Amino acid sequence: MSQVHLAGTGMTSFGSHPGRTGRDMFASAGLEALEDAGVPAADVDELFYGNFVGTLSERQGHQGPLMAEALGTTVPSRRIESACASSGLAVHDAVRAIGSGDADVVVAGGMERMTNMGTAGATDGLARAADDLYEVRSGVTFPGAYALMARAYFDEYGGTHEDLAHIAVKNHDNALVNDHAHLQQEITVAEALEAPEIAAPFGLYDACPISDGAAALVLMSPAYAAEHDLEAGVAITGAGHGGDTMALHDRPTLSRTPATREAAEAAYDDASIDPDDVAIAEVHDCFTIAEVFALEALGMYRGGKAIGAARRGETRRDGELPVNLSGGLKAKGHPVGATGAAQVAAVATLLDGSHPRAGAVADDATIGVAQNAGGTVASATVHVLEVME
Amino acid sequence: MSQVHLAGTGMTSFGSHPGRTGRDMFASAGLEALEDAGVPAADVDELFYGNFVGTLSERQGHQGPLMAEALGTTVPSRRIESACASSGLAVHDAVRAIGSGDADVVVAGGMERMTNMGTAGATDGLARAADDLYEVRSGVTFPGAYALMARAYFDEYGGTHEDLAHIAVKNHDNALVNDHAHLQQEITVAEALEAPEIAAPFGLYDACPISDGAAALVLMSPAYAAEHDLEAGVAITGAGHGGDTMALHDRPTLSRTPATREAAEAAYDDASIDPDDVAIAEVHDCFTIAEVFALEALGMYRGGKAIGAARRGETRRDGELPVNLSGGLKAKGHPVGATGAAQVAAVATLLDGSHPRAGAVADDATIGVAQNAGGTVASATVHVLEVME
Repeated sequence: MSQVHLAGTGMTSFGSHPGRTGRDMFASAGLEALEDAGVPAADVDELFYGNFVGTLSERQGHQGPLMAEALGTTVPSRRIESACASSGLAVHDAVRAIGSGDADVVVAGGMERMTNMGTAGATDGLARAADDLYEVRSGVTFPGAYALMARAYFDEYGGTHEDLAHIAVKNHDNALVNDHAHLQQEITVAEALEAPEIAAPFGLYDACPISDGAAALVLMSPAYAAEHDLEAGVAITGAGHGGDTMALHDRPTLSRTPATREAAEAAYDDASIDPDDVAIAEVHDCFTIAEVFALEALGMYRGGKAIGAARRGETRRDGELPVNLSGGLKAKGHPVGATGAAQVAAVATLLDGSHPRAGAVADDATIGVAQNAGGTVASATVHVLEVME
Repeated sequence: MSQVHLAGTGMTSFGSHPGRTGRDMFASAGLEALEDAGVPAADVDELFYGNFVGTLSERQGHQGPLMAEALGTTVPSRRIESACASSGLAVHDAVRAIGSGDADVVVAGGMERMTNMGTAGATDGLARAADDLYEVRSGVTFPGAYALMARAYFDEYGGTHEDLAHIAVKNHDNALVNDHAHLQQEITVAEALEAPEIAAPFGLYDACPISDGAAALVLMSPAYAAEHDLEAGVAITGAGHGGDTMALHDRPTLSRTPATREAAEAAYDDASIDPDDVAIAEVHDCFTIAEVFALEALGMYRGGKAIGAARRGETRRDGELPVNLSGGLKAKGHPVGATGAAQVAAVATLLDGSHPRAGAVADDATIGVAQNAGGTVASATVHVLEVME
């Protein structure tokens, strides 16, 4: 079992930050996380940093040492890139660094700056998460790819755009109290259904926005925490990572996402829990249908059953399994490289009571999960977080 | 102590491969490594893949799952980017994956395709390994940055362009029998000194070429090797990783490279060896002066003493400590994301006798090191390899 204290979290607001550089945003998030943890930068052993397209948007590769320096240290660092799962994977590998005994204190997080690329530039940048040779050059963009997956799901199990609209409405509603969210805007099912179509069956409100932002976590070994008399309310007790073919055309079906299932099984096994033990989930809803795929691959619902979960109210904040209480990618925003770490931060703060939506979490809730996906779920990570006794 | 069997190696030739895609090259290297190891792709647990500018040169991010698929698997993968140290770091983190008990068989390697970017495009791409905001926009390119470091070294310790020329001559000579090398061309000290100046004190022969290529390793746990009756001649017994400030102007001196020293100390400590135990070294000679920095930071020479090593013959193939018997980055070539893994492969095959320059390795040599650096050594990795008894 992994047993890594999640001692501190930090993040910028997600949105459009034309006046901020990537290093500025990551410094904000990382220093906030260190302060939250009560750990000096000098005690950090390594940095695990996720970023997707900084080479394009800021002409900046080799961001590991740049971001370490922004935190006031020159510790060994690496940039991990796995498209939209970059910082989920940074967290995964950071948990391993502590579990292996190589590190006691690690910063894991990520950053993305995308609004400066413009809509066409960001779409072009995001396309690099798909197979350039066989998908992108055939005209596939991410709205199109997920629309194909949604249509395959509808064909196999049934489902309607209205089902998806309920997911968008729920996640927008959740974000209303989250001042870090990109979109604090209430929408209705009717508005979602009437929005301009972007790729059938998706309308505009089925897609997450293009955002700038950063998120960071401070992880530590139980030994370091004990030695320094530091308390952490939450621990990461399970970490899993899964893979699938890069391109959609190489998969036997488009209506399931086995990379998330593989990551979930590994994380549950690591934490010795079942899906039934989970009280809240933050999942990768880059498009509304992606929340459905995630909940089924996480074992929360059987195939074909998650499509109606938001409509039935089960995943709303007053439901049995609140999902994306932060607002999700859909409304909180999706600065690609920051998303996975921000999801883990959201679960942690929801469980420890410090998140603005923590009131929706049951008093006896002790376990939450965060699921992060790259591309059309060619990569996925799942983390299990538990309240420490 | 790390104890990871290096069971197989594979690489493409390094050079200009206008007709090959990145996935094609990595498939060649990875499948060759698997065949060399005698391991089916189905037994691989994870892929650690290094790449620097594929987002630019092939419009391809998210290369982890793409490259895993090229090997015939969909195992969890990640791209690790640390500029020119990308695949050295991939190897480092792969060693950790096995050491932690999370994986039994791992492929670690990397690929870069750069010649398709043209000279200006490649120079522009490589500049992303420096601080865009404060170095690149001031006109710094990598030849210029390393030239500044060379001049600082000369100012502090002395040294001449002729000393550097001997390093270039040595590494070109080493590459003559290496059919995987980009430059199989003998040069003389006079030719090196007469070559066009690129950034004082450097002439053309002080710089490595821009290359395409891929390299891969198969690493396995001793338990897996024993269970499958697989023999590996060489093990990785030490792995270290170091960091420094991103930009040159933030360092107290330009005449030392503490990131390599940090990585070396960690690797030696891990392997329980001293620098004196090392019989051969492959070091990151992107420019001739970088070999000098590496040898001093590795503890092979005191500050100011490595500049004359090639001239005195000590690091030549008939010297006491042969360095860059593969030809080094200087003559073997430098497909950025492949370099670190290729260095480890070179040390392994030199030690087990299968490298074309293995005849230069002393019969009783059992220990070699590989040193990989990113940017102006803002990142570095060092691996210790030992012949298994």
